[in-house]
Amino acid sequence: MFQKLAIVGLGLIGSSIAHAARRGGCAQAICGFDASDDVRARARRIGFADVITADLAACVKDADLVILCTPVGAYKEVAAAAAPYLAPGAILSDVGSVKQAAIRDILPSVPAGVHFVPAHPIAGTEYSGPEAGFASLFDGRWIIVTPLPGGDDNAAARLKAFWQGLGASVDAMDARHHDLVLAMTSHLPHLIAYNIVGTARDLEDVREGEVIKYSASGFRDSTRIAASDPTMWRDIFLNNKDAVLEVLGRFNEDLAVLQRAVRNGDGQFLFDFFTRTRAIRKAIIEQGQDTAAPNFGRDKAQ
Amino acid sequence: MFQKLAIVGLGLIGSSIAHAARRGGCAQAICGFDASDDVRARARRIGFADVITADLAACVKDADLVILCTPVGAYKEVAAAAAPYLAPGAILSDVGSVKQAAIRDILPSVPAGVHFVPAHPIAGTEYSGPEAGFASLFDGRWIIVTPLPGGDDNAAARLKAFWQGLGASVDAMDARHHDLVLAMTSHLPHLIAYNIVGTARDLEDVREGEVIKYSASGFRDSTRIAASDPTMWRDIFLNNKDAVLEVLGRFNEDLAVLQRAVRNGDGQFLFDFFTRTRAIRKAIIEQGQDTAAPNFGRDKAQ
Repeated sequence: MFQKLAIVGLGLIGSSIAHAARRGGCAQAICGFDASDDVRARARRIGFADVITADLAACVKDADLVILCTPVGAYKEVAAAAAPYLAPGAILSDVGSVKQAAIRDILPSVPAGVHFVPAHPIAGTEYSGPEAGFASLFDGRWIIVTPLPGGDDNAAARLKAFWQGLGASVDAMDARHHDLVLAMTSHLPHLIAYNIVGTARDLEDVREGEVIKYSASGFRDSTRIAASDPTMWRDIFLNNKDAVLEVLGRFNEDLAVLQRAVRNGDGQFLFDFFTRTRAIRKAIIEQGQDTAAPNFGRDKAQ
Repeated sequence: MFQKLAIVGLGLIGSSIAHAARRGGCAQAICGFDASDDVRARARRIGFADVITADLAACVKDADLVILCTPVGAYKEVAAAAAPYLAPGAILSDVGSVKQAAIRDILPSVPAGVHFVPAHPIAGTEYSGPEAGFASLFDGRWIIVTPLPGGDDNAAARLKAFWQGLGASVDAMDARHHDLVLAMTSHLPHLIAYNIVGTARDLEDVREGEVIKYSASGFRDSTRIAASDPTMWRDIFLNNKDAVLEVLGRFNEDLAVLQRAVRNGDGQFLFDFFTRTRAIRKAIIEQGQDTAAPNFGRDKAQ
């Protein structure tokens, strides 16, 4: 489908794109760049790309699809460095969890004749690095593209077909709405999970060993997403501040109401609240976005 | 090991105890009571007990081990109703997530010569009802017993052996400390998960359909524990108010600090915070309390 796919940044998402593109026959050649010697060496050992290089210019040169897979905080620098070598007609895309900041940092570098189509795969795991990638990561998951106003429709359609070839479904929306939706579905849950784990660690009347031993009562769920890549998540919160603070404000308001119901012993309020939340879980399972197996099916695997 | 095990309340935990006790040969006969006609009929169809009855007196009569598995809010009434029929020398226990309230509500009814040993299995799933139970639920999990001061050591030892026969390990601590530890490891994570799901549902700028479609970005994790039994969780928050408000206060303080770091764009603080939380996840996996598989291993199963 594409002649040369250039993947810039070989962590969980970059390496998974390479695996999935190979599986789907979505690119004739795959070239991977990473700034880290260590990451490149590990990526070479795994062998998910035809060429792994430390030369960004060589990686993106002649590529008809270039996907930036670095943390969002590196976009400005890497886009500026790659821009002079991008081929006319090439599609430039990314996978960042924040789309307004991605556009802010990448667009000014994009040369005329190159089609910038921002995108974001709603998929991942708590692991990072080139070993963390696997071909089925995007199967059944959603990719959100946030095409620029006046952008090239054909480029957007080709990028959409690429992601479908990787096993995903594709939606489009504007970048501002994306950032609000993701603040709710991803950034807030991560911030809260990090915070729960932080509170548990610092609570002086409960030993850390107790928190770990008795984690199967609920706490362990929070620790999974709180084990995600710190650099990636630092950059997300630095670059989606407004939307995160907006939904965090709503979360805090709601929590104050729930806290008052606990303080007042308002059993009917609590029961009704805890009943309404079940419907969303049911819908997520019905739409194939989570497993119906109890405890995510993990306990039998142990 | 026991002659007759009486299980009062045939939901997830009660039915799992029956399955696991059979598997482990921990009781010669198992009798189950439930107040609901429907639950009893379903329990009979599954067949995890020798007798299923609507007669609480008959259920506990002659039992040398009686375990209350109803929601915590029903303890006072059910203990008072069962008390006159408890056999001298019997062990009376429970599985409630709140131990001070369990003692407050059960102990006054316990006849002389009956040994009350409160206990709490740190295990469960988001499902409820008699169909939700399975024999391996307690395998590798911790049971916390909170023996009463001056209680019978032999009874506590026999209850410990029973739970070990069900596949679990047993710890002991005082009830007050239990309630604080569980407020942190279980009650707070559930309250927060319920609240995240509530915020997502009520956010008017983001459609519920979007929250569901893009839930694999983190949100879906919260929905699992927010799908837990509403009656059980209402009773937990009504009966462990002080400890929950204490850890919730700490959570809110910590969140205010994290919120300020986001607002100020303090990247170093965020990075350090997100790095420290990884160690707890690692320890939980090393101690066998969670799977190391990415995304809890659930995505491959879909």
